[in-house]
Amino acid sequence: MNRKFIWRMVGLSLLVESALLILPIIAGLCFGERPIAFLITMAASALAGFLLTRLRPETDTIYARDGFVAVSLVWLAMSAFGALPFVIAGDIPSYVDAFFETMSGFTTTGASIVNNIEGLSKAGLFWRSFTHWIGGMGVLVFMMAVLPMSGEHSMHIMRAEVPGPVVGKLVPRAGDTAKILYYIYGALTVAETIVLMIGGMSFYDALLHTFATAGTGGFSTRNSSVGAFNSPFIEIAIACFLVLYGMNFNLYYLIIRGKIKEALKSEEFHWYLLIIVSATAFISAGIYNIYGSIEATVRNAFFNVMTIMSTAGFCTVDFTTWPQYTQAIIVILMFIGGCAGSTGGGIKLSRVMLLVKNAGTDVRKMISPRRVKRVRMDGKCVPDAVLTTVSTFFFLYLFILLACTLVVSFDGADFTTSFTAALSCISNVGPGLAKVGPTYNYFGFSAFSKIVMSITMLAGRLEIYPVLILLLPKKAGR
Amino acid sequence: MNRKFIWRMVGLSLLVESALLILPIIAGLCFGERPIAFLITMAASALAGFLLTRLRPETDTIYARDGFVAVSLVWLAMSAFGALPFVIAGDIPSYVDAFFETMSGFTTTGASIVNNIEGLSKAGLFWRSFTHWIGGMGVLVFMMAVLPMSGEHSMHIMRAEVPGPVVGKLVPRAGDTAKILYYIYGALTVAETIVLMIGGMSFYDALLHTFATAGTGGFSTRNSSVGAFNSPFIEIAIACFLVLYGMNFNLYYLIIRGKIKEALKSEEFHWYLLIIVSATAFISAGIYNIYGSIEATVRNAFFNVMTIMSTAGFCTVDFTTWPQYTQAIIVILMFIGGCAGSTGGGIKLSRVMLLVKNAGTDVRKMISPRRVKRVRMDGKCVPDAVLTTVSTFFFLYLFILLACTLVVSFDGADFTTSFTAALSCISNVGPGLAKVGPTYNYFGFSAFSKIVMSITMLAGRLEIYPVLILLLPKKAGR
Repeated sequence: MNRKFIWRMVGLSLLVESALLILPIIAGLCFGERPIAFLITMAASALAGFLLTRLRPETDTIYARDGFVAVSLVWLAMSAFGALPFVIAGDIPSYVDAFFETMSGFTTTGASIVNNIEGLSKAGLFWRSFTHWIGGMGVLVFMMAVLPMSGEHSMHIMRAEVPGPVVGKLVPRAGDTAKILYYIYGALTVAETIVLMIGGMSFYDALLHTFATAGTGGFSTRNSSVGAFNSPFIEIAIACFLVLYGMNFNLYYLIIRGKIKEALKSEEFHWYLLIIVSATAFISAGIYNIYGSIEATVRNAFFNVMTIMSTAGFCTVDFTTWPQYTQAIIVILMFIGGCAGSTGGGIKLSRVMLLVKNAGTDVRKMISPRRVKRVRMDGKCVPDAVLTTVSTFFFLYLFILLACTLVVSFDGADFTTSFTAALSCISNVGPGLAKVGPTYNYFGFSAFSKIVMSITMLAGRLEIYPVLILLLPKKAGR
Repeated sequence: MNRKFIWRMVGLSLLVESALLILPIIAGLCFGERPIAFLITMAASALAGFLLTRLRPETDTIYARDGFVAVSLVWLAMSAFGALPFVIAGDIPSYVDAFFETMSGFTTTGASIVNNIEGLSKAGLFWRSFTHWIGGMGVLVFMMAVLPMSGEHSMHIMRAEVPGPVVGKLVPRAGDTAKILYYIYGALTVAETIVLMIGGMSFYDALLHTFATAGTGGFSTRNSSVGAFNSPFIEIAIACFLVLYGMNFNLYYLIIRGKIKEALKSEEFHWYLLIIVSATAFISAGIYNIYGSIEATVRNAFFNVMTIMSTAGFCTVDFTTWPQYTQAIIVILMFIGGCAGSTGGGIKLSRVMLLVKNAGTDVRKMISPRRVKRVRMDGKCVPDAVLTTVSTFFFLYLFILLACTLVVSFDGADFTTSFTAALSCISNVGPGLAKVGPTYNYFGFSAFSKIVMSITMLAGRLEIYPVLILLLPKKAGR
C-alpha cells in the first residue's frame, strides 16, 4: 500500500477544507458574529494539511486499494475536522454528535442531531449546509479540479467516487469530466438561489437551501424545514430542482452538446419520470382527504416523493401521519434513490433497472434454457461483469442495512425506527419513519450507534466498496 | 404448453389428497365427531381428480415451463380443495380465510387466521396440522413416490420443488431420492411423536405437533401454542427436532451410508450450528433479567431461535416484549431460514453463504483486479451460473417482499406489522413482529391481503420461480 500517497491526499483535502472555511467565516461576519471557532479550525486544518502534504510518496505507483482507502480517509478526515467548529463554538457540545452531523452533511444524508436548528450560529448553520454542497459532487471531483493528477490515478478514485454504474463515460479524461460536472452543478446552484429568492427567501436562506438541494442533502435553516416558509412556490421550486439534481448528469452533458434527442431517449430517465409520476399519483389518492384541494394534495405528494427519491430529505409535513401504504411507498423510494451519476443516494435507479431486467431475463431463461441471456440498457448489451457487480452491490447493501439495523436496535427503539434509520443512513436520505420521522431527529441514539450510522452513511455515499476495503483486514487485500 | 399434462398432474394430486383425507376422518371418528365435511370434500376432490386424470396428453414432451406451472397449480388446487372442510364444517366460515389457512398449512408457513384454535373440531385440527406434514416434504416427493415418472420429467419438477440449491445430488434418480427422503422424514416423525408423548402430550397432541415440526410449519393444537404445555422438556424436545428438520437432508443420507465424517464436514452445517449458538447466546444476554435462571433464559432463547430459523414459528413466549435488538436478530433469522434441502423456508442458509462468499470474492477482486474469481463451497468451486441464479433469487425475494409489504400496508397496519407479515409469508415462518407477533394472528387483514399473502407463501415455498412463471404473461415464456 502506498501510505504516503494516501496521507498526502488526505492532507491536500484538509488544505482545501481549510480554504473553504472562509465562506462560513464571511457568513458569520456578515451577521455580526465572531467566528473564532472557524478560525481555529481553519488553522488546525491547514496545519494538519500542511504536515501531511510534506509526505512525498517514494513511488508514483498506486493500486486500486490505495485509491479506495484514500477516498474513505478523505471523507473521514474532512468530517473529523469539519466537526470542530460546532464543538468549539458550542453549537453542538458533544464531539460525536458534531461528527455525526458533519458526516451527515458531507455524505449529503441530512440526518440531524440538532434539536434547535434555529439556535445555531449563522456561521455554523452556513457550514452545516455548505458541507452538503461540497459533498454533493464528491470530494473527488473537487480534488480533481484542484489537483493535477494523472489519468490513471484519477480513474481509480473515480471508480470509488462517482455514484452508480456510469454506463456511458462523459468524456475520456476524468479531469475534463470533473470540470463539466462542476459547471453544471454551479449553474444549477445559481439558478436555484435566484428562484428561491424570487419565492421570498432571504439570500442566506435561499443559498443554504440551494446547497442542501444541490447535494440532495436536506439540511434546512429552520426547525420545521421547508415547511417553515409555508410557501407553495418554494415547495414546488425545490421539488423541481430535486428532479434536476436526481437526474443523471450525463443527460445535461448531452443536452449541452446539442444531443437533446439522445438525452430524452435515456431509459433511466423514462423510469425516473414514470416512478415520480406514479408514486405521486398513488400517494395523492391516499392523502386527498387530508388536504382537501387537488393542488395541496398533489404538491405535498410530489414534494415528498422528490425529497425521498432524490434522497434529500427536506420536510414540509409529517408523512408518518399519512396512510400506512404511502409510508410503504416512501420506504421503497428510499431503497431506489436517485439516478446513477446524480447527487442522489440509494441503490440508484439504473442499478434497480439492471436488477429487474436481469431477473426478468433469468426467469425467461429458466423457461427456455437454450435462450441466450442478454440484458439491454439504452439498446446496448450490458456485460455480465456489470450485472454481477450490481447483484453483489445489492447484497452488500442489504447486508449492511440489516447489520446497521441490528446495531441501532441495541438502543431500544422499535423495529420501524431502527430499520428506517439504518435505511435512511445507507441511502443518504435523512428522515425515516416512526421515531426518525420528519418531526424527530437522531439526537436520542447512543454515541456508538451514531458512529456506526456515520460509517453507514459513508458506505452508502461511497457505494460501499471503499469503506469495506478500509475496514477489511489487510490480508483480504492480498 | 402441454396443458393436458399439467391438468393430469393436478388431477392426480387431488386423488391423493382425497385419499389422505381418510386420516382426519379417522381422527374425527375417534373423538366421536361426524366428519361429514371431510367426506364431502373427499368426494369432491376424488371426482375432480378423476375427471382431470381422464385427460391424456397427446405428447409426452413437457418443458420446464409445464413442470413449473404444474407444481404451482398442484399446490393451489390442493389448498383450494383442502380449505373446503373448514368452511363446510363451519370451523372457518369464510372461504378466503380457510384458503389462507390451508395454503399456510401446505406451504408449512403456519400463519393462522383462527382466533380460537381450541374451538376447532378435532378432525379439522388434525387436517390443519396434517397439511404441514404433507407440505413439508413437498407435493413433489409425494407425487414421485406415487407416480412412476421418467427421470427427465421428475427433474423438471424437482428443480421447481426441492428447497434450495442442492449442491450434491443425493442419488442419480429422482425417484430413489424421493424414497430416501421419505424414509428419513417418516423415521423422524415416529421418533418425535414418541418423545413428545414421553414429555406428557397425548398421542393426538404429540402427533399434530410432530406434523407441524416435521414440516417446520408451526400450527399448534392450543391457543397459546407450545407454551400451553408449560413443559421445559417438550420445548427442548421440539427445539432439538427443529434443529434436525432444519438441516440439509443430504447429511442424513450420508450418515445412513456411513459417511459420517463427510457429513460433519459440511460447511453449511458448521454455519448452521454457529448461527444457532451465537443467536442463542446474544438473545440470552438480553433476556436473562426477564427469566432470572440460566436454564429458562437459554431454553427460551434456543427455542425461539430454532422456531424462527427453522421457520416453524411455534410460540412459547411473546418475544415482542423482549429487548428490541433480539427482535432485530429474529428478523435476520427470518431472512436466512433453514438449510438447503431441509423442510425450512427463508432464503436458505446455503444461498446466504454463497451470497456472502461471492461478495467477499468480489471485494477482493476489486482490490486485485487480476485475481481469478473463485467461490468455494465444501471445497468445490461453485459455477458462475449458480452464483448468478442465487443473486437473482435474492433480488426477487426482496422484490416480492417489498411488493407484498406494499399491498398489505393498504390495510393500514404499521410498517413493522406489514413488513414482518410479508417477510413471514415469503419465508414461511408464521409469526412476525408487532400486530403479527406471537400473541396475534392474521385474522384482521383484508381478504385481498390474505390472497396476496397466500400467493407470497406459495412463492416462498416453491422458491419463487414456479409461481412467477405461472403469473407471468405468456409471451414472456417465448
